[in-house]
Amino acid sequence: MSCKDLPAHPFDDDKLREECGVFGVVGVTDASNFVALGLHALQHRGQEAGGIVTHDPATGFNQARRMGLVRDNFTNQKVMETLPGTIGIGHVRYSTAGSKGQTAIRDVQPFFGEFSMGGAAIAHNGNITNALALRRELIERGSIFQSSSDSECIIHLMARSMGRTIPDRMEEALRKVEGAFSIVAMTRTKLIGCRDPLGVRPLVLGQLGDGWVLSSETCALDIIGAEFIRDIAPGEMVVISDKGVQSHFPFRPAKSRFCIFEHVYFSRPDSILGDRSVYETRENIGRELAKEAPVEADLVCPVPDSGTPAAIGYSLQSGIPYAMGIIRNQYMGRTFIEPSEQIRNMGVRLKLNVNRALVRGKRIILVDDSVVRGTTSQKIKDMILDAGAAEVHFRIASPPTAWPCFYGVDTPQRDKLLAATMSEEEMRVHIGVDSLKFISLDGLYRAVGQKNGRDPAAPAYCDACFSGEYPVAPSDMIDQGFQTKTAAE
Amino acid sequence: MSCKDLPAHPFDDDKLREECGVFGVVGVTDASNFVALGLHALQHRGQEAGGIVTHDPATGFNQARRMGLVRDNFTNQKVMETLPGTIGIGHVRYSTAGSKGQTAIRDVQPFFGEFSMGGAAIAHNGNITNALALRRELIERGSIFQSSSDSECIIHLMARSMGRTIPDRMEEALRKVEGAFSIVAMTRTKLIGCRDPLGVRPLVLGQLGDGWVLSSETCALDIIGAEFIRDIAPGEMVVISDKGVQSHFPFRPAKSRFCIFEHVYFSRPDSILGDRSVYETRENIGRELAKEAPVEADLVCPVPDSGTPAAIGYSLQSGIPYAMGIIRNQYMGRTFIEPSEQIRNMGVRLKLNVNRALVRGKRIILVDDSVVRGTTSQKIKDMILDAGAAEVHFRIASPPTAWPCFYGVDTPQRDKLLAATMSEEEMRVHIGVDSLKFISLDGLYRAVGQKNGRDPAAPAYCDACFSGEYPVAPSDMIDQGFQTKTAAE
Amino acid sequence: MSCKDLPAHPFDDDKLREECGVFGVVGVTDASNFVALGLHALQHRGQEAGGIVTHDPATGFNQARRMGLVRDNFTNQKVMETLPGTIGIGHVRYSTAGSKGQTAIRDVQPFFGEFSMGGAAIAHNGNITNALALRRELIERGSIFQSSSDSECIIHLMARSMGRTIPDRMEEALRKVEGAFSIVAMTRTKLIGCRDPLGVRPLVLGQLGDGWVLSSETCALDIIGAEFIRDIAPGEMVVISDKGVQSHFPFRPAKSRFCIFEHVYFSRPDSILGDRSVYETRENIGRELAKEAPVEADLVCPVPDSGTPAAIGYSLQSGIPYAMGIIRNQYMGRTFIEPSEQIRNMGVRLKLNVNRALVRGKRIILVDDSVVRGTTSQKIKDMILDAGAAEVHFRIASPPTAWPCFYGVDTPQRDKLLAATMSEEEMRVHIGVDSLKFISLDGLYRAVGQKNGRDPAAPAYCDACFSGEYPVAPSDMIDQGFQTKTAAE
Amino acid sequence: MSCKDLPAHPFDDDKLREECGVFGVVGVTDASNFVALGLHALQHRGQEAGGIVTHDPATGFNQARRMGLVRDNFTNQKVMETLPGTIGIGHVRYSTAGSKGQTAIRDVQPFFGEFSMGGAAIAHNGNITNALALRRELIERGSIFQSSSDSECIIHLMARSMGRTIPDRMEEALRKVEGAFSIVAMTRTKLIGCRDPLGVRPLVLGQLGDGWVLSSETCALDIIGAEFIRDIAPGEMVVISDKGVQSHFPFRPAKSRFCIFEHVYFSRPDSILGDRSVYETRENIGRELAKEAPVEADLVCPVPDSGTPAAIGYSLQSGIPYAMGIIRNQYMGRTFIEPSEQIRNMGVRLKLNVNRALVRGKRIILVDDSVVRGTTSQKIKDMILDAGAAEVHFRIASPPTAWPCFYGVDTPQRDKLLAATMSEEEMRVHIGVDSLKFISLDGLYRAVGQKNGRDPAAPAYCDACFSGEYPVAPSDMIDQGFQTKTAAE
Repeated sequence: MSCKDLPAHPFDDDKLREECGVFGVVGVTDASNFVALGLHALQHRGQEAGGIVTHDPATGFNQARRMGLVRDNFTNQKVMETLPGTIGIGHVRYSTAGSKGQTAIRDVQPFFGEFSMGGAAIAHNGNITNALALRRELIERGSIFQSSSDSECIIHLMARSMGRTIPDRMEEALRKVEGAFSIVAMTRTKLIGCRDPLGVRPLVLGQLGDGWVLSSETCALDIIGAEFIRDIAPGEMVVISDKGVQSHFPFRPAKSRFCIFEHVYFSRPDSILGDRSVYETRENIGRELAKEAPVEADLVCPVPDSGTPAAIGYSLQSGIPYAMGIIRNQYMGRTFIEPSEQIRNMGVRLKLNVNRALVRGKRIILVDDSVVRGTTSQKIKDMILDAGAAEVHFRIASPPTAWPCFYGVDTPQRDKLLAATMSEEEMRVHIGVDSLKFISLDGLYRAVGQKNGRDPAAPAYCDACFSGEYPVAPSDMIDQGFQTKTAAE
Repeated sequence: MSCKDLPAHPFDDDKLREECGVFGVVGVTDASNFVALGLHALQHRGQEAGGIVTHDPATGFNQARRMGLVRDNFTNQKVMETLPGTIGIGHVRYSTAGSKGQTAIRDVQPFFGEFSMGGAAIAHNGNITNALALRRELIERGSIFQSSSDSECIIHLMARSMGRTIPDRMEEALRKVEGAFSIVAMTRTKLIGCRDPLGVRPLVLGQLGDGWVLSSETCALDIIGAEFIRDIAPGEMVVISDKGVQSHFPFRPAKSRFCIFEHVYFSRPDSILGDRSVYETRENIGRELAKEAPVEADLVCPVPDSGTPAAIGYSLQSGIPYAMGIIRNQYMGRTFIEPSEQIRNMGVRLKLNVNRALVRGKRIILVDDSVVRGTTSQKIKDMILDAGAAEVHFRIASPPTAWPCFYGVDTPQRDKLLAATMSEEEMRVHIGVDSLKFISLDGLYRAVGQKNGRDPAAPAYCDACFSGEYPVAPSDMIDQGFQTKTAAE
Repeated sequence: MSCKDLPAHPFDDDKLREECGVFGVVGVTDASNFVALGLHALQHRGQEAGGIVTHDPATGFNQARRMGLVRDNFTNQKVMETLPGTIGIGHVRYSTAGSKGQTAIRDVQPFFGEFSMGGAAIAHNGNITNALALRRELIERGSIFQSSSDSECIIHLMARSMGRTIPDRMEEALRKVEGAFSIVAMTRTKLIGCRDPLGVRPLVLGQLGDGWVLSSETCALDIIGAEFIRDIAPGEMVVISDKGVQSHFPFRPAKSRFCIFEHVYFSRPDSILGDRSVYETRENIGRELAKEAPVEADLVCPVPDSGTPAAIGYSLQSGIPYAMGIIRNQYMGRTFIEPSEQIRNMGVRLKLNVNRALVRGKRIILVDDSVVRGTTSQKIKDMILDAGAAEVHFRIASPPTAWPCFYGVDTPQRDKLLAATMSEEEMRVHIGVDSLKFISLDGLYRAVGQKNGRDPAAPAYCDACFSGEYPVAPSDMIDQGFQTKTAAE
Repeated sequence: MSCKDLPAHPFDDDKLREECGVFGVVGVTDASNFVALGLHALQHRGQEAGGIVTHDPATGFNQARRMGLVRDNFTNQKVMETLPGTIGIGHVRYSTAGSKGQTAIRDVQPFFGEFSMGGAAIAHNGNITNALALRRELIERGSIFQSSSDSECIIHLMARSMGRTIPDRMEEALRKVEGAFSIVAMTRTKLIGCRDPLGVRPLVLGQLGDGWVLSSETCALDIIGAEFIRDIAPGEMVVISDKGVQSHFPFRPAKSRFCIFEHVYFSRPDSILGDRSVYETRENIGRELAKEAPVEADLVCPVPDSGTPAAIGYSLQSGIPYAMGIIRNQYMGRTFIEPSEQIRNMGVRLKLNVNRALVRGKRIILVDDSVVRGTTSQKIKDMILDAGAAEVHFRIASPPTAWPCFYGVDTPQRDKLLAATMSEEEMRVHIGVDSLKFISLDGLYRAVGQKNGRDPAAPAYCDACFSGEYPVAPSDMIDQGFQTKTAAE
């Protein structure tokens, strides 16, 4: 099942994609059922595959890893019965570029390793930027890799560590890796969470009765009725057992650089990131956009569903009425066979339909979250104009996406990013609309609460996809010829 | 796959359900691919099963009937290759109460019959209110029924007719049936459409190049790029061949009584019914509700997704900001296994999450399309209050649903309808909200363009589910003991 | 799943194929489990599909009809739970020439009809030779056929009968049909069995505790531990209820003409047909062959598995040692993908391997049950010679098959039958063996116990496939241009 | 799918089971298609799972590993298209005791490892008797095991080797393992075969055009039309590349101890082992049995299918006619649901039926290959007596199986082996037959060509299952408390 088959977002092939969600729970009966629910709530972070590991004294470690959606695999009684225990972790993922078809199951996390003091499983959200170099060195010394995943390095580094406990080994391993990581891991009795020193990817702590929960986002606490306690801090490792939560800071301290795109698109609108409501941030972005890029029009319409909160904000700020000018088909999913009498823009029609009676003769402001390749923007513009709209004005809730992400997001190569090769006006002409405006980087920072906009000397977020300023050098990519901004200039 | 497994609406089990959608096309290459797309656009009218019949001179009549969604069956190359031809019809359906499991495939339409002058297939949206009596008589005379469906009577009546052509036989058959029917049928070369004299269910005519299309709703014309020509009139039969569209009126003329609930909930918001935009009608309902039942509050929030247009209308009329207070999980679908440590209202949590940061401390107006059993309304109220809302005011975009429908909609028995047993105030207390208001029947008529509201002497719509006034006597049900309003009083 | 995928016989595509097996039971708990076992024992009579109908007072009539083997469908707990009751019937079948793919499920028996006095289901082994004429007339009068099967005529004739009971209606219906039929049918409380006046196909009665069993062959009594009571007589109808077994003879009396090929190939060697052991008959055929067609050789080898008993008989009579010169692969089943470097006779290699060490340098007598197209005989000869055999002598346990069967067996058209176009010597040259001999028709009659061979004036068996003498005129086929022997001469 | 579901042998649960078959090919187009066919011919050596690895310059190493039969997985076009290349190896296996359900796929071979000089895959038939000790040490040093299989040690030992080439590393690894192994392995360009110094399991070399083949048995050469060249010698390693076949002898020389049970039961009758025809060996065993244990009787009948050649030999030697007294159901496979009115010995009835007409009143000699637990022998005796046999004499084509095998065969624990706890006469009484005789160990040696029987000082075969004399000490088992014969005495 390719991602194009999945209902996440109507234009997944023209969006950046988060590569993972992680979840773990300890101290509850039927841990796997909680993990399944948590992963279901995190499904938007990775739709291609999912896995769960649990431990039970009677059966030892148990695992199930499957291609496809959580709801299609982990609702099956027979599968869930193979996952007993009061501790468990899980992972959802997108495929990486290289893996394909049959072999991809090898790459589905959590990864498991048996050490001399017992087993451990880990689930990783992020990307290790020196994974290739580490892998080469580990193979040289006799490690056998099961997968093509960068994350597997961590468990081999742990296997070779001389550390006496598994948390000790994980600390030692993580000090050797570079890049972004939010990790949920487990031993027979301990649940472990860790974020990289910059805290690029989210990870939160929750409480559920006497038990504890770790999750990429708070929306997964809500689904199981757990209470949100706090974010795991950048550079923090927590070890949770029946003695409670112990906190460590094994890394050299650094200034936090949380991914700003989590606010724009990746995270669910009902999640809270760094004490900020994602929905309200997006509504703020819409308001900022209305201030930065006003235009006379009859209706403000979102590109469903991710443009909705920003469109509402734009409408509230501008006073122009909000309306559903584009209706999303709730049953989208597969590729239909096109008749030989071809249908114009059939791919988009399967997913969206213009509300023709509404838009006819109107000046329409369309609000979308981002422009990646720009292919979908053109098709939507075609549909709106076919339906008789008088004018089409695009407003984009993020700055131009001009640089690839190397911290756990699937982005096209740089030359495929529209904003890497065109100015805003060139993009307007290319897409063919009456106006096109992106929010400014300062405007975006204001929307996330930085009143003075972005501090160029010490930005509060990772915004490399917009600015080209990578807080951790992507060393494997540089080895393969990637030119950073400094090098490119 | 039961309806509870499907992504249509988060509270399908507490909604009225349309039982069918019909679609047909003639005069195009690869008719089946167009039919598959049309049925996909009509999927909301019936998610349990679907079927397609085509005819090709080389292979004769071809059919495929399957349980499940259109996208899961009719995107398969192998299946579609078995359906060649330039003429085809299709049907999507909900299950009826009686059928279960393995045998249900028998009940999937279109139904096919071989007559002495050739074969015919028919697809039916509606319900025949004298089907049991007809069936009894047909069996007495030697007909063998394949299904438990009321619709099968039509094809047996046609088989026994002395009519010389298939359209003649269909006319003769339809003059014997009572109730609601919008039918799409086909012979080897002719596409036939027909609506009952009251025109209870919708049926529209479209044009696609040199070919013609019949569909339950206009949204299915949009997906294939066909042009909307006109509604098939109540009591009209059209016979479409390579000579064009011939129109007949085989029934005694009657005043139109189109189903008003199609505007409230069944039809897609991007469809046009009787020259009215469904979206605008729903926005109008919201505006009427705001006039009839104003309340001081901080936010207007829809119960997603069907309450959205009315909530937007309420917000526009009242000036109270519109917001997404409830977020719908896009991946809902299956029943997860609940942990033994039970989760409060887990069923609803799988589908919806309250936007906690947004609603905390606020007075919330929740707009929903209807209240059937009321069970879901209680759970949503619980979730909103758990999240810290200060007040909850329910506004319902339809009058109280107090009577079952016998014209093709799956409704609970009368004693299960909350409004059949409680007053509005009793319902408010039962659900546990600060206020609860339904739109009035007159208000609803105003929203659909009847400036003076409902004319009690000659209502323009079928509104039996609200009024208990059945335009066609449900004779089979009366035989089984159902008490009409007059009888009940 | 096509028949080529199935493990029945290594050369199914070059064999005549029985088209059906029937089974029924009444007066036992869990009737469907007995029916499943009985059908499993009759699987060799039809491997493409199977169906079971039961009746239970609580659920009414229940049915499950599936493509594929009994063991793959009716061992499933969920399926079997839908088939409660103390009475049930079942059917296994090959596909008929016309049906293909998706639609074939329509043709899977038992067929069911609801009459005014209640429902009935029937399962039919045989073939109705005037089915086309009957079908045409029934359609003319308004019957709607569900399938392409000749057997469906019977249930429509029953539906139109004025008979007051279901057995009365079945009698009336069967008096209108011509051809071969062994039928097992059921009402809510009665199990009914019937054989055509010539008794072409087998049907036996068994007893199981207080219950009764009807089956095509005795091997299906053995599997459930039932006692074999007697054959149902040609022209007999039995109606079995809690009052016991009532016997009727509704047809004009006729001389029995049981199918002699049931003894040669169709029936299982452990069945008893007309009081004769099939295994012993086949061993007798081998002995007769050794007398009629002796040859000097080193080893007698069967073509597995159907040639085995005759090869043993040939060895015992001739004194030449019996050996397994050809080994059958027990896992055959599917079509493997052939490498581009093609493998000579790969199809046969998948199923058989020559025991090279054994046959090298030896003179081999190969015993097979029949020659239909002759294609497989050539390939086996190739394999034996490749392995170094000095001589190959074919001995065939039936006379030349020169005429198609119209009584329930799937035979190629006449011009595809090798023996219809070649003499024995021409066939020997065509296949390329040192000698080729078929048993004589008289020899075959002697092997089944007719000491004086075949009585040309009044043959004891139907031997039309060998003699071209059809005991019932195949009227539909004659209408379509088939030339009988008299016409051909 | 458990082994009980599979058609291999009617009494698999009461037989010793070979645990693996291996196959490899190099220098041919579409190697994977040849591997699939080879594995299909070796399916009797392992029915639970299978895997294929190939290498192609464009795609690198490709693999597919699946639960179930070769014919159900590797006939699928889509699967086979993922396996391009001119070199490939494959493996079929039974499950080991420990693995269960979902996780077992981890244990399916071939295993693959990426080393610094490139990747290698290995497939192993046999058992490593010091695997637990090796595994413990490897984990201590940081290796992460993917499976529970003893065979995985080999690839980890290779990963840690300092050898410069993959064959060098394999030599070094294999010098550290004890036990039985016939290995087929591959690099990008080389096919490697190796047998342990005693040559316990078979491995043969074949030629196919310009390409080369390695296989557990010759029957897999026949299916692809390859020519049998020679056995790989005990202790030999062959490295096959486009330069031809290079032979090495890396181990300390030892006297060959080939598994004698391969002749009795494991190998296919059409294979040639050590220049001896398996079929002829089994016929010889029957002749020896007739000499050692004659008895007056009417018929010699095999227990199908594995007893057949020995029964033929017994008949030829004794002059008592051979007959099929027991008929095997060709469609066996699954567990049917037993009716609540239970059927005596239903499990056996599903698989076998007694030819009642044949055995009634007769004195029957039943020839079977072995007695393990004895449970099936009792049931067969019951069936034969129920059918009216006058006497039943069991003759067993192997000596009493009194000791478990630790060299790659799945045997019950010693206390479950009937012969470990009973004398021959006690077994006769336990099974309940008129006589019971096993061939003597000397008789068995004579049947495999050792004219003077077994040389107790230097037996030519491994016969530990009969004699308790283990040619390699089972060190892991001894660590776990197993008592060898010397210790037991």
